[in-house]
Amino acid sequence: DGAFGVLAALEAVQAIAEAGIATRHPIDVANWTNEEGGRFVPGVMGSQVYRFPEQLPRMLAVKDAAGISLAEGLADAKAALPKWQPRALKAPVAAFLEAHIEQGSILEDAGKVIGIVSSIQGSRKFFVDVRGEEAHAGTTPRRRRKDALLAAVAMVGALERLLTDQDDVLRFTVGRFVTSPGAPSVIPGQVHFSIDFRHPDDALRQRLGDQVGPLCQALAGPCTVAVHEPQASETVPFAGAAVEAVRNAAKRLGLPAMELYSGAGHDARNLAYLCPTAMVFVPCEKGISHNEAENATAADLAAAA
Amino acid sequence: DGAFGVLAALEAVQAIAEAGIATRHPIDVANWTNEEGGRFVPGVMGSQVYRFPEQLPRMLAVKDAAGISLAEGLADAKAALPKWQPRALKAPVAAFLEAHIEQGSILEDAGKVIGIVSSIQGSRKFFVDVRGEEAHAGTTPRRRRKDALLAAVAMVGALERLLTDQDDVLRFTVGRFVTSPGAPSVIPGQVHFSIDFRHPDDALRQRLGDQVGPLCQALAGPCTVAVHEPQASETVPFAGAAVEAVRNAAKRLGLPAMELYSGAGHDARNLAYLCPTAMVFVPCEKGISHNEAENATAADLAAAA
Repeated sequence: DGAFGVLAALEAVQAIAEAGIATRHPIDVANWTNEEGGRFVPGVMGSQVYRFPEQLPRMLAVKDAAGISLAEGLADAKAALPKWQPRALKAPVAAFLEAHIEQGSILEDAGKVIGIVSSIQGSRKFFVDVRGEEAHAGTTPRRRRKDALLAAVAMVGALERLLTDQDDVLRFTVGRFVTSPGAPSVIPGQVHFSIDFRHPDDALRQRLGDQVGPLCQALAGPCTVAVHEPQASETVPFAGAAVEAVRNAAKRLGLPAMELYSGAGHDARNLAYLCPTAMVFVPCEKGISHNEAENATAADLAAAA
Repeated sequence: DGAFGVLAALEAVQAIAEAGIATRHPIDVANWTNEEGGRFVPGVMGSQVYRFPEQLPRMLAVKDAAGISLAEGLADAKAALPKWQPRALKAPVAAFLEAHIEQGSILEDAGKVIGIVSSIQGSRKFFVDVRGEEAHAGTTPRRRRKDALLAAVAMVGALERLLTDQDDVLRFTVGRFVTSPGAPSVIPGQVHFSIDFRHPDDALRQRLGDQVGPLCQALAGPCTVAVHEPQASETVPFAGAAVEAVRNAAKRLGLPAMELYSGAGHDARNLAYLCPTAMVFVPCEKGISHNEAENATAADLAAAA
């Protein structure tokens, strides 16, 4: 993933060809469209369409915040880069390997260069809408308030207690929390917040995630609450033979390596449903990613390639 | 306050004149500029300038969200309403009475028509800025997170426990709560929230309000927090003789009345520093105010006038 990763992979493929090494299958380098999902939502769009070709028209129609569709955006990119000759990856694929920065700081902390990725952990995502009643902050007694913010705060506090584990494997994040109308002297009538909750254990994730809705209902007080779950994904284990190939290559090259699972989703999640798939992680500085400060060394990228 | 209140007051003054009643002082009806503070901030701007004339240039320069100054807005209003002949209220004033809807539902619940307002409760307002660190929701372990949202939620929960009283006199509101960057899969790096806290007892308000800063500091966890207090106002008691005049008038007219204090600020707060001042409240439906659904009956407005 990423422009420098793609360049490193292309160089590696070139080196294989120049060395005159014959491979059992042709090797292609794929640069999947819209992995980040920044301008166009959802992310990992290219690999999703590769897995579900019937979604292509729907994805091409997706619009950015300015109302420009993905189809228009791709046409603009082609016009701006006349030398850019995209070629679709053929199907089926015999095996898929994705190199990626780790996005945490596990490799950095452990002083390892290669992460042998065993699986991508599953996640559940919820949106919670709390509705109360706007009222004057100075005149409305507590017994008459339907304060959507205080109800939402009680829910998030209880969710944090529910979704905290001793081993620090659970990932619980409320990334979006929007209060309206948002004036300091008006009791909030509405709050909308998101829940992102991940764990590699499918049964645990199911059991804990199923408590999210009832817990929010129990803490709504005088407000009403609606919880919906737009997205859930199971943990995807990578193919034993593909993971073994990564492990062996690291050993052969003498690269310090460790096994881990991926906390984030990746294009490899989609490919894993189609063919033997694995991932190779490299350290990135302080785990910072999807950010201009993202930094991985050229040597580590080359090692992964 | 309000166009219908002003019309009712003008009719009352007219009736006094037509009845040939001689008054010790001339009676004027004032319609204070920008009481709500909706388009131009702050509110009660007219009475504030009447109290502090040196603030006039600063207030005329205040701009709305579209960049139009109050001076331009007033000029536009004069041009649009050529028959509108504003005349400044002279100083000093011998006494001031303000009629206003109650904005709670105390009078409505008690079945009273007139609220004899004894004081305007004091308030303290705080802004809290919590700074953590943006990070990936799927990959960042809890021990490495600086989650500004969870820290802010812990603060609001503790503030609610601190600022809740059995008698339901305390008013505690977090009306603004802004999370950034606000993406569901990104741990929030910043939260900004407001605290509006009111109580008629100056000593209690002082003592409890002084705990806001230390409490937020204690709950910041791995984040940093800055608390500042842009505004505080003491409880303003109205003049005994003016309140007595309202009480006697209600009695003489046989209007069901009760004493209460004002939860919200009003133009009368500014006038109370200049001359004997009191307020007359009338019921408003369900306490809804600063809202197009605001509703008070013509009969109640006339009674107050």
